Parts: sequence; structure tokens; C-alpha cells
Amino acid sequence: MVQVSEKLSRLRRFLLSEGADLYYIPGTDPHQDEYVPAHWQHRVWISQFTGSAGDVFVGQAQAWLWTDGRYALQASQDLDSKCFQIVLSGQGRPTMRQWLTSQGQRLRFAVDPSVISISVAEELRQTLAETDGELVFVDNWVDALWTDRPPLELKSLKLHPLKYTGQTTADKLIKLRDWMREQGMEAYALNTLDSIAWLFNIRGADIPYNPLVISYALVTLDAAFLCTDTKVSKEDAEVLLESGVTVAPYADFMTLLQSQAGQIAMYPGEATVAMWNAPRVGKPMRVSSPISLWKACKNSVEIQGSRIAHEQDALALIRWMHWLTTHWRGLDEVSVTDRLTEFRQQGRHYCGDSFPAIAGFGENGAVVHYRASSETALSIQDTAPFLIDSGGQYLEGTTDVTRVLHLGTPTARQRRDYTLVLKGHLRLRHTRFPKGTVGAHLDALARQFLWQHGLDYDHGTGHGVGSYLCVHEGPARISPGLIKVPLQPGMILSNEPGVYLACRYGIRIENLCVVVPVISAEDSEVGREFYGFEDLTLVPYQRKLIDICLLTAEEIGWIDQYHRRIWDTLSDRLSGGAREWLNQETAPLQ
Amino acid sequence: MVQVSEKLSRLRRFLLSEGADLYYIPGTDPHQDEYVPAHWQHRVWISQFTGSAGDVFVGQAQAWLWTDGRYALQASQDLDSKCFQIVLSGQGRPTMRQWLTSQGQRLRFAVDPSVISISVAEELRQTLAETDGELVFVDNWVDALWTDRPPLELKSLKLHPLKYTGQTTADKLIKLRDWMREQGMEAYALNTLDSIAWLFNIRGADIPYNPLVISYALVTLDAAFLCTDTKVSKEDAEVLLESGVTVAPYADFMTLLQSQAGQIAMYPGEATVAMWNAPRVGKPMRVSSPISLWKACKNSVEIQGSRIAHEQDALALIRWMHWLTTHWRGLDEVSVTDRLTEFRQQGRHYCGDSFPAIAGFGENGAVVHYRASSETALSIQDTAPFLIDSGGQYLEGTTDVTRVLHLGTPTARQRRDYTLVLKGHLRLRHTRFPKGTVGAHLDALARQFLWQHGLDYDHGTGHGVGSYLCVHEGPARISPGLIKVPLQPGMILSNEPGVYLACRYGIRIENLCVVVPVISAEDSEVGREFYGFEDLTLVPYQRKLIDICLLTAEEIGWIDQYHRRIWDTLSDRLSGGAREWLNQETAPLQ
Repeated sequence: MVQVSEKLSRLRRFLLSEGADLYYIPGTDPHQDEYVPAHWQHRVWISQFTGSAGDVFVGQAQAWLWTDGRYALQASQDLDSKCFQIVLSGQGRPTMRQWLTSQGQRLRFAVDPSVISISVAEELRQTLAETDGELVFVDNWVDALWTDRPPLELKSLKLHPLKYTGQTTADKLIKLRDWMREQGMEAYALNTLDSIAWLFNIRGADIPYNPLVISYALVTLDAAFLCTDTKVSKEDAEVLLESGVTVAPYADFMTLLQSQAGQIAMYPGEATVAMWNAPRVGKPMRVSSPISLWKACKNSVEIQGSRIAHEQDALALIRWMHWLTTHWRGLDEVSVTDRLTEFRQQGRHYCGDSFPAIAGFGENGAVVHYRASSETALSIQDTAPFLIDSGGQYLEGTTDVTRVLHLGTPTARQRRDYTLVLKGHLRLRHTRFPKGTVGAHLDALARQFLWQHGLDYDHGTGHGVGSYLCVHEGPARISPGLIKVPLQPGMILSNEPGVYLACRYGIRIENLCVVVPVISAEDSEVGREFYGFEDLTLVPYQRKLIDICLLTAEEIGWIDQYHRRIWDTLSDRLSGGAREWLNQETAPLQ
Repeated sequence: MVQVSEKLSRLRRFLLSEGADLYYIPGTDPHQDEYVPAHWQHRVWISQFTGSAGDVFVGQAQAWLWTDGRYALQASQDLDSKCFQIVLSGQGRPTMRQWLTSQGQRLRFAVDPSVISISVAEELRQTLAETDGELVFVDNWVDALWTDRPPLELKSLKLHPLKYTGQTTADKLIKLRDWMREQGMEAYALNTLDSIAWLFNIRGADIPYNPLVISYALVTLDAAFLCTDTKVSKEDAEVLLESGVTVAPYADFMTLLQSQAGQIAMYPGEATVAMWNAPRVGKPMRVSSPISLWKACKNSVEIQGSRIAHEQDALALIRWMHWLTTHWRGLDEVSVTDRLTEFRQQGRHYCGDSFPAIAGFGENGAVVHYRASSETALSIQDTAPFLIDSGGQYLEGTTDVTRVLHLGTPTARQRRDYTLVLKGHLRLRHTRFPKGTVGAHLDALARQFLWQHGLDYDHGTGHGVGSYLCVHEGPARISPGLIKVPLQPGMILSNEPGVYLACRYGIRIENLCVVVPVISAEDSEVGREFYGFEDLTLVPYQRKLIDICLLTAEEIGWIDQYHRRIWDTLSDRLSGGAREWLNQETAPLQ
């Protein structure tokens, strides 16, 4: 295997011959995937850093890894400190912008245009301009050096039937073309895989955890192309063609872009510079991405599907929780998580996990993005809270749920912390809010009880979730980030406040919920439409961790009502010990 | 008096001779004043519309008034409908941008550069460019036609002593120049009167309600100019000179700008186009306004001053409220408000009201920006809630307080509404929040109880308040607006949720409070500094409007504690009936 130092020195020859000062190797891929396939893990190849967030800059004398505080420890373990310097981003630290401008005047900054978005490139260009620097687009030099590069592992495309999507591809294309005409464009180019999967009602297995097909798409006013090398059966290709979608090879996408005669449009936040520069005639038009919002607002079939998926998921989790209460001895975080996957596999239409489970016992629970491995896994004990954040992919929908279990007797402090988190979780769940409200307005409702005790959590309260798509989905979220996307009926979002005490334990309670209309503008005394949330997740909170003294009568009522609903929905499908366990766990609190 | 139609036709001759399509007459003045002096009320002169928000566009065939929904009724009364068309802005309506682009291609849009900010001009220019239009700067054509234009009514400048400001002008200039050097500028130009008043520790009476001096300022690295025609005594001019401030005539400002050799800087959100275009050499630099933030974060002397001012103000309001309970018969909104001003006038260092009081009985209380006049004033009765929002200017600080009084027996519904508003007001007041929190994160804490009942209010929850300066002050506020200014210790903000039932009554409860540190980063288990609020206002809530059944024990404790503090602070300075009344009003709720 080639040493990191040798890789860097080979890369530096490119720098020299190109007269560039820095080569930028972002941790992303041409499709802005959250889980980057091995084939595109350029940053891992050069640095050996495997964390999910991180960018590399290589200069003649030095190389840097940019990552955030979560990965400080991992980066120092993964990286060769003689070759790489770690730069941490985040609160109070210099931004990449400040760092870049401090690297000297007239910087020539090189990057492969196929892996960065137009927005990122523009920000870089502006920053560099401040010090008379320049952004230059070059070939991917890592590709040229990476001799044992793994190929893309492409699986098969599957059509996702109408009974799950609730809307045909033909209908989605009509809607998209109406929007395209309105905006005055003749072609729209797409590179994000979940948007393409939604638009064409296709699913795949090319990306771990996300049921996606590695592909590009081009939609014109009278044609639609799905460019992919993933296997498409002849029958499926015919069905797609009947819906107006022509399947073409992956590499044809750039050729199609190049030969477009009409006005082409792209969303700069997702489309790459390579796409932007492709058309031979005219300049692309900048537009927002309507698909992101359409995809986020689930239709009634998708919502009904999500309910079914959540029932399957809850049955698995309830059976596992019951099993855990008597089988935890001698097991560790990894083995109990494997067992949870086995319980999920018994569910109808289960297609895999929706993300790598976070199973943290005691102090490991305090590591927000923890992923248990054989080296780190603690054995499960009855002495501290055990946090389990997991989810499944089902044909009907995607789940994501976090529960905390104490297998012995929790301390008063643990019960207080759990109850403060639960109060915020319940308050957000039961809030009503007027049309136009964005997630940043609601985020503090989930934090307020923790804040009173000087506690907080360093992550958002909720993210969007796809419909048998990505477990993290835009454009709305519930977080302090001042994002201008109002919450709208049909959006599925997580509700997951938490508290993390370093070296002690972590508590997080997470349900998925769907935004529903609760008061019409006509029925409102102030003439405004009000929305609320409905829980999709159907897993009981752990009653022994609840300190009833900290709850209001209303909050106790909310919990009892939720537990009653779980019992009513699921008890018929359970038997024996698991049924009895659920009966006890969902009994009224008082 | 010249008819509106005649004014328009004279103005249209200018349009014709200049080859322009539209002339823009904004409702602002060269200093972006909230209360525009009569001398600069160009928009009122041309349209006769006297509302506080509104812009006029004059075209060859038509003229438009742009205002918001609050002023729809007033606009239709004030305007000659044969001459003006009303366009309402706001939610769901076309923006000025959309309206302008719908007015046709290649629009030549004329405006006086001395009355619009650089930011507004840039937005207009961009909008016009979309339809190949153009923004052209012309003389103020209204000035040329306005023969009986009132002169500026300039009063005297007063130095505001160190015992109130807590920081000398010399120190403020050192701080400003440090910032200027950091940003690489040699001169900084200012046109907003409260920033100038803060920087030079001066106050005046040139603007109603705001104790300001009509002036411009230019600060270089070694000189500072206050350009004003307001009367400055020889002694005061000498004191200013000793602090490094040279007083110059108002008109000299533009000459000073023109002759600046060094790099000059301006804040585009406040500075006018006339200022931007003035320098003969070089191009001005765009900077943010540091003074706005420095001014917002009050020092300990200013906070102590605000406490003193609020005690004076509370004594006046308490005496008035006691007086009102027995003297309301036969009086109307105007006469009881006049009486309140008389009570305030008895306070030490009272300098005038901080804004025109909003005194709305019953249905008038539901008009958010109501201002009682002899035509609209309802007589005070004991049949509905009476809303009074008022404030005073004191040498030590500025006050702003809203209370609702029911002089008879409130209905269950009125008590519920009052209590829901009070719960939000208390929840916001008692929240703790981590450093970095912005007002948009906290706004919903004050709304959450109303939202549960499908109620809301169509205004922000809190605005910044100056220190014997403007009652509305930036840059922070507590509102749904996604403003990125974190709340910081020393900021004085209002806390004023409300509910308005059209044709019935309005309820608003408003205190001013100051942001204070409550947990240090060292003492926090999550390593973050936490802030909270402290009340400055010392006026009891009306106990008969409180429905105790809707309050938690904690909320009852908060009210009792607040009332106790009012009694302890003020009772010694009250006597007779007012003291007895306060005793009753501040007794524990249960």
C-alpha cells in the first residue's frame, strides 16, 4: 500500500506542474451523498480519515484536514500527524473563509469541478478574490494516482409502485414542467439521488442506508432522461418509457447537457460546477429546487405508508426492548444492536436499516454521533442509561427512533434529566403553530425546560425524513439555524431533544411526527391557519425514568394518551412476554 | 392651498422633462427618522396621507400609495381616490419588487438620492435591471414645488452628562477608531440621529418623542465633526471640542465628505445615496454599524439609570391607575391619556413622552397601532378591557409599558385571554437561554399558550429600547423575523405579547427588561454561558383579569414575587389612596 506521505508527494507534483498553491479534496461526491460510496472517497484515500465530515487541503509544504469538533479525537487517531494538520471548524473558531484569506495573497486554489456545488464554488471564488486569489478547475488528481480504486458497486433499480408513492411519475413530470414553464426554462438538470428517486418513482441499493440509484436526470419540456449504469430490467425500462422516462448510460448525462439547445436550469446548492460548465450554448439559469419541497410534503398515501412502516418498526423495537430486559447480561452495544436488526428483519417489507444505529451505554451515550465498534463497545449493564437511536427502511416508509433504557434503578438525577428532555419533546409535539412558522421558531420549545437548568444540546431538534428515502432530508428542519422554509402539512420531521453529560450518560428521546392542519383560517379567531404534529413513532417512553413530580397534569395526560394509543394499535399483534411487557409499560402513569 | 391634482400635474412636468416614468417619494427623511419632521414630510405634502408608513410613486397617468394593512382605512380616508390608487403590502400580497417589474420594460425610475438608503437603492436597481429599467437620481422635485414648506424646528443641543451615559465621548471615539483601524478605514460617516447622539453624548428636541439633534457626523482617525444647525451654546461647543468634537454647520457635512482624501466608510443600511456619491476621490467602503450594537448593550450606569427612570414612571402610572378607578366616569381615551401625562410630568427628570400613547377602550384596543383622536375616542366604561400603552423620556432612561385595566367585572373569556397573554409574557421573562440565542428563537415562548387556543398576534414580541434615546432601537429584537443578532447582556428589550379580537377588545402586557448573565460557562454543565431577563418595569398586572386556575404554581410564584418587589420598591414613595390601592393590587394572589 502506498504511504500517505508518498500520496501527498505525488499529488504535489500536480500542484507544481499546474502552478497551484492548494488542492482541495472535499469529503463529498458528485451527488452530494450523505453516505459516500467507496469509489468516491477521495478524501479518505488521501488522508485515511474516515469521519463523515471532513475536507482536505493539500499545499506544497503542508496538508490540512478540516473537520468539526465531533471528529477531533477520531481525526487525531486516523491521521498521520507528520503529514496532516487538523483544523477544527465551529463556534468561535476561524471560518474556512478566514483561514483561506490568512493563507496569503494571490492563492491559486485548485479543485475538481465534478465534486463541488456551484454555491460552494462561488463562495470560494469570492473569498479568494478578497486576497486576489483564484479558483481553478482541474482534473481529479486523486483519480490519476488512485490505482486500486474500488469500482462503483451498482445494484438493481426497482420501480416504486403507486401504492407506496401515491403519485405517478407522469403526474410528477406534469407538475415539474408546469413549474419549468413558469420559470421560463426548457430543461432542468438534477444530480441529487433522492430527488431523482422521488421524481421517477425508483429505488435502488447503490448507497448504504439510502435506497438510491446512482444517476443523473435531465428533464426537458418533452423528454426526461435517467442516466444510470445501475441495472434496469427490460420490463422496468419499458414502464419508465411509458411514463416518459428514457434510460440512458450514466456517462451520457454530460453529453446531453452539452448538446442542450434550450434554456437549461440548475439549483446551485446541489448542482456541480461540472454540470454548470457543460452546456455548449448559453448560460444555465439559477433556480431553486422545487422537488425538495414537493418531496418533503408527503401525500396521504405516503403518510398512511409511514404509519404502517412505524407499526412494523414499533413491533420490532418493543419485542427487542422486552427481550433486552432479560437478556442483556454478557452482551455489549454491538451484539444487542445486531439483535435489534434481527427483530426488524422479521417485519413486513423491511429493506434494511435507515442509518448505522447509535447504541451508547453510559458514557458512550454522551457521544452524540457515536458508532459502536468492537474496540469501543461497552458491555450493557444495569448501572446507567442506555441510549439506542436506530431506524429501518420499509417499502412503505422510513423510520428513525431513539429511546433510553435503564435496566436497573435510575438515580434521581437521571430521572430528572430524562423528564426534562421528555417535557421538551412533549411540548414540541403538542404545540400548535400558525402557517408560516419555520423550524427555528419552534426549536426553543423543546429546549426551554433544559435551559432553566443550564442544560442544552448541541444539535438540532428535528430533521426531515424521506418516504422510503433518506432519513435526513431537506429543506425544512427544527433547529436554531435561521432557515426560511415554513413547516407545511405532510412534512415528516423528527422531534429529538437530548442532554449529554460527558463521561456519564446521554439521553435523547426521538419520535417522528407529521405536520397536520389543526385549525382552518375560517375557524380561527385571528384568521390564520394553524398546524400541529401527530406522532408516527409508536414506542413507549421508559416509565421508570419519568419523574412524575416534574410533570403537569396535562403532560401526564399526553403520555397516558400516547401509551394507550400504542397499546390499542399494537397489542393484538404481540403475544406472550412482549405483550405483557407492553401492557405494563403503557399503563397509566398514576 | 394647492389641490393634490394640481401638485401631481406640476410634478408630472418634471417627469416629462426628465424623461422619467415614475417618481418615488418615500415616507422617510435623510436621517431615517421614525418620526419625520414636518419639513421633510414630502409624502404627506403630495398625498395628504399622514400614516407613519407609506411611500408614493407618481407616474404620468397614475399615482400610487404603498402602505401596509394597518393603514388601509386611514389611507382611503386621507387620499383623493381620483388621484391616488392604494397598494397594500404584506403577507400574501405582491411585493414592491413584483409590482415594479409588472410596470413594464425599461422603466426610468427617479428619486432624490438624499432620502433613500444605499441598500434600498441597490435593491431597486437590481429589481429594475430585471426588466431593463434604470434608477435615476434627480433633485427633490417636491422641494421645488412646495412653496409653504415649514422650516426645520431646531431646538437646543444639550450635553448628556457622564452620570447618565457612563462613558465619555472621548472613550467612545477611541473605541470607534480602534474598530475603524481594524477595518482599514480612515473616516466613518453617520446620518442616523440616535447613533450620533450616543456617540457624542448629546441630546436635543428636534424630533418629537425622540430626544435627538438633527445632524450628521464624520469621524476620522484624528478629528470628529458634528454638523448641525441646532443651537449649541459656546460652553457646550467648548466641552465638545475638548472631547475632540468640532461643531460645524449642517450643510458642511457634504463638503466635508467631498473633500475627504482617506478611505471613507458607511453602513449601507442607514447612509443615503447622496452620502455615498459625495466623496470626490475614491469609492466609499461598505461596513456594518458597530455603534448600533454598542448603543444597544447598556453599561451599568445606563442600566442603573433605567431602573431609576422606571421607578419614576411606575409611580406616575400607579397614581394614575388608582385615580382612574374612581374618576373614569364621563372621561374618554384622550382625556385620561392627558391626565397620565400630567402624572408623568410630576416625576423627576421627566422630559416628555417616549411615543404617542395608545389608549384603546374596548374595540379600539383591538386596533394595534391605534392613536386616539377627538373623532375616534371612546368614552371609558366599566364594560370592557381598556388598553394603555405609553412611555416617558427621563434623563436616566426611556420607558415603555402596556397594561390592560377592566374597571368593572371582566368576563370569563376576557380573563382567559388576559391570562394566556400573561403566561407567555411570564414564560419569556423567566426563560434562560444560551449565549448565541437570537430573538427569533425566543419569540414563540411568548406565543405558545395563545397558539394552543388558535390565537396569535400580528406584531413582534419585543423591540430594543434606547437609554434616553429612541423607544424603538435596533439591532436586536424578539420577533419571528430571522435576524442574526444574538441577545447580549445589557440589551434592554420590551416583552409585549397580546391578543386582539376585532370589534371587541385588545389585550397586551408589556414590560421592559434587561438581558443579564445568569450562569457562567464555567458553572454550566454543558460549558455554555446562559443569559436571562430582569424586569425594569414596576407596574402591577391587574389581578381581577387573572384566572388563577390557568396558572401553574410556578407562575403564581413569579407574579407574587414581582408584585412584592413593586411594593417593596415603591410603597414608601406613595401615600393615601394610591398606596392602599397598590397594597391591594400587589397582595399575594392566593
